[in-house]
Amino acid sequence: MKNKLTVVKLGGNCMDDEALLHTFLKSFSNIPHHKILVHGGGKLATNLCTQLNISSTMLNGRRITCEKTLQVVTMCYAGAVNKDLVARLQAIHCNAIGLSGPDGNLVRAVKRAPLPVDYGFAGDPAEVNSGLLSLMLNNNYVPVVSPITHDHNGQLLNSNADSVAAAVATALTSMYDVHLLYVFDKKGVLADAEDENSVMPFLSDSTFEEMKLQNKINGGMHPKLASGYSALRNNVSQVTLQHLSSLDQQSAGTTLVL
Amino acid sequence: MKNKLTVVKLGGNCMDDEALLHTFLKSFSNIPHHKILVHGGGKLATNLCTQLNISSTMLNGRRITCEKTLQVVTMCYAGAVNKDLVARLQAIHCNAIGLSGPDGNLVRAVKRAPLPVDYGFAGDPAEVNSGLLSLMLNNNYVPVVSPITHDHNGQLLNSNADSVAAAVATALTSMYDVHLLYVFDKKGVLADAEDENSVMPFLSDSTFEEMKLQNKINGGMHPKLASGYSALRNNVSQVTLQHLSSLDQQSAGTTLVL
Repeated sequence: MKNKLTVVKLGGNCMDDEALLHTFLKSFSNIPHHKILVHGGGKLATNLCTQLNISSTMLNGRRITCEKTLQVVTMCYAGAVNKDLVARLQAIHCNAIGLSGPDGNLVRAVKRAPLPVDYGFAGDPAEVNSGLLSLMLNNNYVPVVSPITHDHNGQLLNSNADSVAAAVATALTSMYDVHLLYVFDKKGVLADAEDENSVMPFLSDSTFEEMKLQNKINGGMHPKLASGYSALRNNVSQVTLQHLSSLDQQSAGTTLVL
Repeated sequence: MKNKLTVVKLGGNCMDDEALLHTFLKSFSNIPHHKILVHGGGKLATNLCTQLNISSTMLNGRRITCEKTLQVVTMCYAGAVNKDLVARLQAIHCNAIGLSGPDGNLVRAVKRAPLPVDYGFAGDPAEVNSGLLSLMLNNNYVPVVSPITHDHNGQLLNSNADSVAAAVATALTSMYDVHLLYVFDKKGVLADAEDENSVMPFLSDSTFEEMKLQNKINGGMHPKLASGYSALRNNVSQVTLQHLSSLDQQSAGTTLVL
């Protein structure tokens, strides 16, 4: 039987509430088996772009990344956010180690084609160094992964953190029984976007496709759901979307089903 | 007999000349035995502080670090510079992995006392996780270390990269035969600061003390020389200061002697 591994993706907008973030990190550090944290960056990068007069556009939950924006997101995600999360986890005795895509070729990505939408220096994860992650896990380190990736030709790329989480989870399925959790500031996928309590306990891919056609899925949910179903189809055991305060609750949120 | 390990500290001001940096990284990647790169940040952080209207002061080669400056140096050193160097090394088939002090508790530092000079969120390296570095080296990864450290209580700190390089080198002496190289934009320690060709092939600690009294040592050289002699006294085999273009020249630069 394979060892359990939980890959948690922490939404970028979850880092502004200090108390909530602390509670989440405590719950994360208490997961009794192997674990990996993948994080976004969110507001810090957007704010820094504003301060530096760099225009910053989001489309379908993905950032359009010019060269200057790439430097800002690299600074924010791989630098400020990653090291802050690692230092906080270390302080509560969780042996976190921060990594980004170029580190040990952890995540090689392929730059998105410029058509139909030119996302600039944005890349989709193509290859994960699962050997590096299992080396870390087997030596009791807890990888904390930023969504900054590279093309292995010297170019850094900005990847969607949801896609990175799914790629990391999928790459480790031959070695571990993998559970992928997307935690964010909603309780799950809502049947009615206006009603915070309309959480759907399960969501099938066919219902998701219907809801998409009815415009019932908001922008930021697209990458989570698309990459979540992809992970399920590629041997990840369970994919759940839930609120960051409910990490230790077994039946919280929305579980994806095929 | 112990395996050889070369710890190279790359000066912050060496990253502006693209061609020179590429040559240096090529030479570094060609070192035939275990190696670690420690880097500073230099101008990028200073420029970003200027753009964001954060005052930035250097004293004796060390940066005075307020809370905002700490976030800027974390973004620049642990983010932009570290990941750029790692991506460039990966592109020339050097299996680099970027790490900062909080990562796996790599470098724990102690915040500097506020007297006689209050350097703010600046810390002196106190403990290095040599086990993590040897795990990386034994698995053919090449650590690339930024000078952002932490106090293990959740606070990031800005450390002098020369001191971090010396601490890393010293911590590994029980496992490796360690050579510490400071590479920068001078050919070595100059007998006459006005004459670039007055490189001293050897410099004893007593001569260094005399030169200090005569104000013949400029600000940025202090941490290199002080931490270099400290490393020599703590079982590092050889400490050399040389130009970044001469990494593959055996007898270049200034070798420190006790």
